[in-house]
Amino acid sequence: MSQSFDIAVIGATGTVGETLVQILEERDFPVANLHLLASSESAGHSVPFRGKNVRVREVDEFDFSKVQLVFFAAGPAVTLSFAPRATAAGCSLIDLSGALPADQAPQVVPEANAEILVGLKKPFQVSSPSPSAATLAVVLAPLLGLLDLQRISLTACLAVSAQGREAVTELARQTAELLNVRPLEPAFFDRQMAFNLLAQVGTPDAQGHTLLEKRLVRELRQVMALPSLKISVTCIQAPVFFGDSFSMTLQSSSAVDLAKINAALEAAPGIELVEAGDYPTPVGDAVGQDVVYVGRVRSGIDDPAELNVWLTSDNVRKGAALNAVQVAELLIKDLL
Amino acid sequence: MSQSFDIAVIGATGTVGETLVQILEERDFPVANLHLLASSESAGHSVPFRGKNVRVREVDEFDFSKVQLVFFAAGPAVTLSFAPRATAAGCSLIDLSGALPADQAPQVVPEANAEILVGLKKPFQVSSPSPSAATLAVVLAPLLGLLDLQRISLTACLAVSAQGREAVTELARQTAELLNVRPLEPAFFDRQMAFNLLAQVGTPDAQGHTLLEKRLVRELRQVMALPSLKISVTCIQAPVFFGDSFSMTLQSSSAVDLAKINAALEAAPGIELVEAGDYPTPVGDAVGQDVVYVGRVRSGIDDPAELNVWLTSDNVRKGAALNAVQVAELLIKDLL
Repeated sequence: MSQSFDIAVIGATGTVGETLVQILEERDFPVANLHLLASSESAGHSVPFRGKNVRVREVDEFDFSKVQLVFFAAGPAVTLSFAPRATAAGCSLIDLSGALPADQAPQVVPEANAEILVGLKKPFQVSSPSPSAATLAVVLAPLLGLLDLQRISLTACLAVSAQGREAVTELARQTAELLNVRPLEPAFFDRQMAFNLLAQVGTPDAQGHTLLEKRLVRELRQVMALPSLKISVTCIQAPVFFGDSFSMTLQSSSAVDLAKINAALEAAPGIELVEAGDYPTPVGDAVGQDVVYVGRVRSGIDDPAELNVWLTSDNVRKGAALNAVQVAELLIKDLL
Repeated sequence: MSQSFDIAVIGATGTVGETLVQILEERDFPVANLHLLASSESAGHSVPFRGKNVRVREVDEFDFSKVQLVFFAAGPAVTLSFAPRATAAGCSLIDLSGALPADQAPQVVPEANAEILVGLKKPFQVSSPSPSAATLAVVLAPLLGLLDLQRISLTACLAVSAQGREAVTELARQTAELLNVRPLEPAFFDRQMAFNLLAQVGTPDAQGHTLLEKRLVRELRQVMALPSLKISVTCIQAPVFFGDSFSMTLQSSSAVDLAKINAALEAAPGIELVEAGDYPTPVGDAVGQDVVYVGRVRSGIDDPAELNVWLTSDNVRKGAALNAVQVAELLIKDLL
């Protein structure tokens, strides 16, 4: 496999884009030429790659016929504007924004539904799901065959980095102000985020669900190929910089075999199972790592048909950038 | 009701005990003489009450026949040691430690099961449940008649103050060290608590459940008089000083009437319902308040038989000290 590819990364100056470039280098992805693209405000910056600083250029002016694969790591609006141009130029794409419908660009988590790539036609269009869906799919995949799954109940405790650099800076600033007994003036968040929990990430619809929650349910159902699975989900914002964590309850129709569940998690790719008694945390375990950490695997109190699990992963790295690169690795293997 | 009572508070120097004394004063509880008691280490301190500093004395040497009512706001060991002496002296007691079995001292949350007090015999023995159970019972009470409840799924995000003053100091210290880029040396917690989430509060049993989780399930079932209700619960430790928060999913056997649910929550005592679109937080809403804040009331995505709720309350005040004082108010009304 000595072939190499010309690659573009759109949104290269964001937290996910920058990590994606870093992972391409770490994993020796066969990049011939790397084109880093961003909106006009961020163009002109540069991002390190293989010992050189690569200048970030304006996406508006980019000729997509120069590359075989493009990562969309900016917002949905950017994907909707430029994906048609990329595809028209014969360029395959991996979108991380959630902008494209599943029938056009299916959500793929390599550990869960890599087989879906085989059916796609060139130029490929693939979605890399939200960090929450990607993380959860990695853990659900090895469990599905062991349960007659009736329902999933989820509380997602999201890191502020999910909302970008401004949110990270704001949590640090608020914390410093409070510790120095200075008056708190929320800027990015609409209230105190430091030492607090916000019960809602984004604006809810008339039914009370946020876009993030609906996206998570939609993507999980698609990746797991369980279109009518009942999933209850609450996404909250925790005062954590990096690393999303999930408290998850699965209901089966009959008693869960914990020994089999543990063995399946132990054997599954992309998972680090923490031994009973101990538990994984975002900081200290998940952040900076390529695996999803799983712990507190237990049945219900008085309910053997219930399975409880705690999981945590680096939302920027494993949840987003690495998942997209793993998809790309599969695409170039036989297909691109 | 000009009668007044001689009262003792054991554990008067702890976070809950101190708040309890403060609430007795705020609510003009008819205290004749107040006796503040603690272990030998804390004896000698004093706690303010009605403009005077009341000296804290050793519980070992206390003559329980001097009082009609005693609050046990120390640990379970203290309750187990001294409750028999209090009762033998004819003194009624309210225990906040969870040490006494339900058939001896039933768990009472005035908003949920005050009627249970009527059946008790003097000297009264009542338990004030864990802050989590008290908070949840306040919110569940008005809902039970509106649902055919099949199951509750809970993630409890607990404040560090649940573990006492040392835990509060440690979160502040860790945070300051991290912001000042000094090496982190965990002391009270076994790892980094600042900007992190710990998936487990206390040591789990062989089945993976912590004492706190089992206590919560047991107490909720007792207060709601639903001994076989299925409750799945995960208690996590959040980097929040005060205020416990809960993400709760209730499953009914049929479609939930959200208008009725909202009306019931609006009308219920001890609850502040936050309007749709907004949401309550521990800091800024619940802390220092006498009510449980409820928000994000919504059915499931594609599941009308599911009810999701977010709630938050001051764990030390509403969850513990105030609940105990509310029980005492009911006891003295007709009974003591």
